[in-house]
Amino acid sequence: MAIPVPQPVRTLIDALRTLPGIGPRNATRLALHLTSPKGHARELALALTQVLEQVRPCKQCGFLAEAELCSICQDPHRDSSQLCVVEQVSDVIQFEQSGAFRGHYHILGGLLSPLDGIGPKELNLPKFFNRLRQQPIIEVILALPTDGKGETTTLYLARELKDQNFRVTRLATGISAGSGLEWVDSLTLEHALEGRRPV
Amino acid sequence: MAIPVPQPVRTLIDALRTLPGIGPRNATRLALHLTSPKGHARELALALTQVLEQVRPCKQCGFLAEAELCSICQDPHRDSSQLCVVEQVSDVIQFEQSGAFRGHYHILGGLLSPLDGIGPKELNLPKFFNRLRQQPIIEVILALPTDGKGETTTLYLARELKDQNFRVTRLATGISAGSGLEWVDSLTLEHALEGRRPV
Repeated sequence: MAIPVPQPVRTLIDALRTLPGIGPRNATRLALHLTSPKGHARELALALTQVLEQVRPCKQCGFLAEAELCSICQDPHRDSSQLCVVEQVSDVIQFEQSGAFRGHYHILGGLLSPLDGIGPKELNLPKFFNRLRQQPIIEVILALPTDGKGETTTLYLARELKDQNFRVTRLATGISAGSGLEWVDSLTLEHALEGRRPV
Repeated sequence: MAIPVPQPVRTLIDALRTLPGIGPRNATRLALHLTSPKGHARELALALTQVLEQVRPCKQCGFLAEAELCSICQDPHRDSSQLCVVEQVSDVIQFEQSGAFRGHYHILGGLLSPLDGIGPKELNLPKFFNRLRQQPIIEVILALPTDGKGETTTLYLARELKDQNFRVTRLATGISAGSGLEWVDSLTLEHALEGRRPV
């Protein structure tokens, strides 16, 4: 049964449905909220317009920037000897929220996936190799997902960086902080055992 | 730790957080998606602008309309002898999706709540009583929530409509369609028993 809402509301529902994790029911609920007087639709429309007009990818690392370079690339207090390679923008935010890394990032904008036609040329790699030549980088940290595509990409980059003068590392795989063993899958447990350290 | 994203992205995250059911983590995720090239931010901004410019409350029932009256109030094929009183716009959509009702609606825009300072004057009631005087209404269906505020409002309206020439009804309370008894709360079960019907 078609819902008898005005066409603009229907268009808004469709636009909201393109968002990740928003199903048809939720999209309708959000659209109705935004259509109501207290829905802040104007503020959201304005925020979207400003993002479209003022935010672009950082020319160096691919993170979000308002100028040529993002605030991380511009920050003189960050350690330019460490370059952390990640898949996407949200990974940088995860690291920044943890506060655990003070070096620089490079965002690939994807992962190698031959079946989907994504090869090295489809990733943000030319700038990466340029940075390796031009910047005082000592360590490259490959912080990519541990699934199939992530592994493929990690192994590809490790091979490309072989016999060059960089320390190439990857994130440890192991059990989560604060986790008991009962929730750990076998592969993670195997990796955690392989990577065991003296106490 | 503050996330080092540009101010427009931060503003977008804040705007998304005002949406119902969207927490800080989800707002960040949605904002990053919208900031990415495939994020359809332009379409969403346009849809919001069109809703703001073209959609208003129906002058008669309070539902969403592009003209003075909504498509339901304009529809000559609907039964104008039945008026279904609901709390909010989404309730009308629920009824319309069920396809079970072919009469007209009246949206109160809230429920009586003396503690929150919401009395009869704060609800869309003058138009309601006008409609009762001017339209060929035979039955008023009070389809309000069965919580405290909904009950207060139902009882208030039932009292106002007493001794007038309307059939005043309310929705049945009982067990859900397709539900077993093991998930039913006691009050609902009591109501279902009281409202039992011959098979």
